[in-house]
Amino acid sequence: MVIGGDAGGMAAAAQARRMRPDATDLEIVAFERGTRTSFAACGIPFRVGGLVPELDDLVARSPEEHRARSQIDVRTRHDVLGIDLDARTVEVRDLERDETLVEPFDQLLIGTGARPIRPPLPGIDLDLVHGVQNLDDAEHLLGHASSGCRRVVVVGGGYIGLEMAEAFCMQGMEVIVVEAAPQVMRTLDDDMGALVHDAMVRHGIEVRTGVAVEGFEPDRVLTSEGPVPADVVVLGIGVQPNGELAAAAGIETGVRGAIRVDRRQRTTAEGVWAAGDCCESVHLVSQQRVHVALGTVANRQARVAGINIGGGYASFPGVIGSAVTKLCSTEIGRTGLTEAEARAASFEPAAATITAKTRAHYYPGAEDLRVKLVAERGTGRLLGGQIVGGEGAAKRIDVVATAITAGMTAAQLAETDLSYAPPFSPVWDPVLIAARKAAEAADA
Amino acid sequence: MVIGGDAGGMAAAAQARRMRPDATDLEIVAFERGTRTSFAACGIPFRVGGLVPELDDLVARSPEEHRARSQIDVRTRHDVLGIDLDARTVEVRDLERDETLVEPFDQLLIGTGARPIRPPLPGIDLDLVHGVQNLDDAEHLLGHASSGCRRVVVVGGGYIGLEMAEAFCMQGMEVIVVEAAPQVMRTLDDDMGALVHDAMVRHGIEVRTGVAVEGFEPDRVLTSEGPVPADVVVLGIGVQPNGELAAAAGIETGVRGAIRVDRRQRTTAEGVWAAGDCCESVHLVSQQRVHVALGTVANRQARVAGINIGGGYASFPGVIGSAVTKLCSTEIGRTGLTEAEARAASFEPAAATITAKTRAHYYPGAEDLRVKLVAERGTGRLLGGQIVGGEGAAKRIDVVATAITAGMTAAQLAETDLSYAPPFSPVWDPVLIAARKAAEAADA
Repeated sequence: MVIGGDAGGMAAAAQARRMRPDATDLEIVAFERGTRTSFAACGIPFRVGGLVPELDDLVARSPEEHRARSQIDVRTRHDVLGIDLDARTVEVRDLERDETLVEPFDQLLIGTGARPIRPPLPGIDLDLVHGVQNLDDAEHLLGHASSGCRRVVVVGGGYIGLEMAEAFCMQGMEVIVVEAAPQVMRTLDDDMGALVHDAMVRHGIEVRTGVAVEGFEPDRVLTSEGPVPADVVVLGIGVQPNGELAAAAGIETGVRGAIRVDRRQRTTAEGVWAAGDCCESVHLVSQQRVHVALGTVANRQARVAGINIGGGYASFPGVIGSAVTKLCSTEIGRTGLTEAEARAASFEPAAATITAKTRAHYYPGAEDLRVKLVAERGTGRLLGGQIVGGEGAAKRIDVVATAITAGMTAAQLAETDLSYAPPFSPVWDPVLIAARKAAEAADA
Repeated sequence: MVIGGDAGGMAAAAQARRMRPDATDLEIVAFERGTRTSFAACGIPFRVGGLVPELDDLVARSPEEHRARSQIDVRTRHDVLGIDLDARTVEVRDLERDETLVEPFDQLLIGTGARPIRPPLPGIDLDLVHGVQNLDDAEHLLGHASSGCRRVVVVGGGYIGLEMAEAFCMQGMEVIVVEAAPQVMRTLDDDMGALVHDAMVRHGIEVRTGVAVEGFEPDRVLTSEGPVPADVVVLGIGVQPNGELAAAAGIETGVRGAIRVDRRQRTTAEGVWAAGDCCESVHLVSQQRVHVALGTVANRQARVAGINIGGGYASFPGVIGSAVTKLCSTEIGRTGLTEAEARAASFEPAAATITAKTRAHYYPGAEDLRVKLVAERGTGRLLGGQIVGGEGAAKRIDVVATAITAGMTAAQLAETDLSYAPPFSPVWDPVLIAARKAAEAADA
């Protein structure tokens, strides 16, 4: 039995089916509160921005496809209300028929995801305030964008905030981003976040940092620095794991209420598994438990859970927090620990930041990029990296992610034979230059 | 004393100067046969294609700049004729004054580079036949492109052949590539080379594989399958290291006549160093000596030589043969060993090839890319990778290069937390999918 119809749940279910293709050998039933399964929530900003012609383009696999291809009994508009671990049943509300059922399970997979944080502020439930979670949100926001709304306030300057700001810019709206912290992009160090701030301003977005949102009225946002007029408000202040259902059943939860799982995605309850945005991960660099709500992590965890539920063996090694995004022509990548995070995790970090070009300086379209690498003082072991720059900048972070995963030092990365041609890189790849400087900093 | 004014020589000289900034402590003289120093030969095709407005844009550092910034006594139009290891002198021809000098050295760095192979065929010295080596070649070829030449025959379907074919296409010329081997891009396996062949045809280039060039006449190329009309011919059949000067002095040479060097870029002669296209490298995967004429390798070797000559310690770990190029909108990347090379190096390779998208399938501009990974059967150790695909495909090879350098297995790479966002990647990065398949193949 699967609770939750998106990546965490359905990717696990489909994987379990691949392990045991015979439906009589493994019956799978999946409950989903909404009407859709396996949709790309990451695609919502691009739908709102007008880049995705059909909403269905964001659906990777519909309930019908899950039924046909994987023999999964998908029941949409079914809201699971409770889990009884002793009785091995769940209580589930059929929202269409308006009746409550009790359904038995042998193995249970919880893939309940996460929800946008909605702080309990006055006016939070007003119509103009939107979260970004499912495809209905995409359609509502797209509707606003195309129906004469002029002014949007985005609360929060993180990934969602940035991507939604870009989306509304593309729709010709006036965009104001309000961030309570002193800098946007809190997953970067402040010096790199400042580059993102600059880029936002350059791309025509108004940014107000250090400003707290205090409430909402039908046509404005109330902040610590006075009211800001708004036709629509988007919340981009992070997500909260949906761990309550598990917690209520007596399953252990941890960081921010996310469900605790072991390497094989087992919860603390026998025969109960969890995957995706609702559960914890282990950070491979800090060795701390973290809650990382990303599609990559959800799919990887779901695959592990599905293999194990199907009778195979798989373990999830953990995350290093790799992420990329873009704001118009400015790309942003990060992996591992920031300098601040490294310090908080008791490392003594040494950091180096360099400016270089995305291509040979003489090749058309060569743009600046800035690379910051963080290494451990003394050993030189790579701890993290951040990149902000023009086209071709962000995905270079994957080299750093690979080096961190392999336990390489900055000096080893600096000696790596990365590829070069004028349309792709200067002869010394920016990552290599940064690695050399980080090695020197770690040695000093 | 430095012989050769491009990367191998001058990057080493500049590095040695950084180690010992005082000119009285280290005198540096550099002889260059031509008139320019430190130019980007890799940029020639893009100059010919019309993308680089000024030829000087390809000069990273002129003789004057080397003199001013690094106190290097650069003597252009000086052709070194011989090295006397016993007398510690070189014999050098001043081409301007037409006189021969004998100059003493304490330490000698050979950075003589490589030259395009010119097979001894009838008509090879005709005016229409061009190599691609220095900036004068760039201007000659650009002159042809802009002066009514209509039809160019490119001999050889490797990197230079491909890039020159693109350049002439951009200039609106008719381009025919003649390749003696059964497939273009011999640095890829045939199955991946076939994708490049297809791309060439798609981009309007005529490709004739398995066709041997037998000679040249003023308006045509003679081949094993008859004459091919040509206004201009470009040779792209590889380069020959300029190791003769060293060999004549009794310095050991190896693969294809390239100068043998140790980890610190020392030749077999005391106090004589070599760096760049004139010398050998060690391949980190095959552990064989190879001749890799690439700007990255030249600069890395030169840096090592310069540090050592300046009294420091540095060693060059070797190469893994990473390279990227593009043909119009088709990108090509490779690193490590191909399946064929792995077999030739006594590995038992297991390979996997997958097709995926460069971006989320719903994001505009998502294009196909094909990734082939080669792993060692049994251990699963990564041996090499090849990528052919649309925009954003090629530089992904750096992740594979990093993983190979770190000694990762395909399974380890498959578990790596690479970054994802719809404009940059599908949720499962193509490299990760290929790594998983390669791990399975190696395990089978």
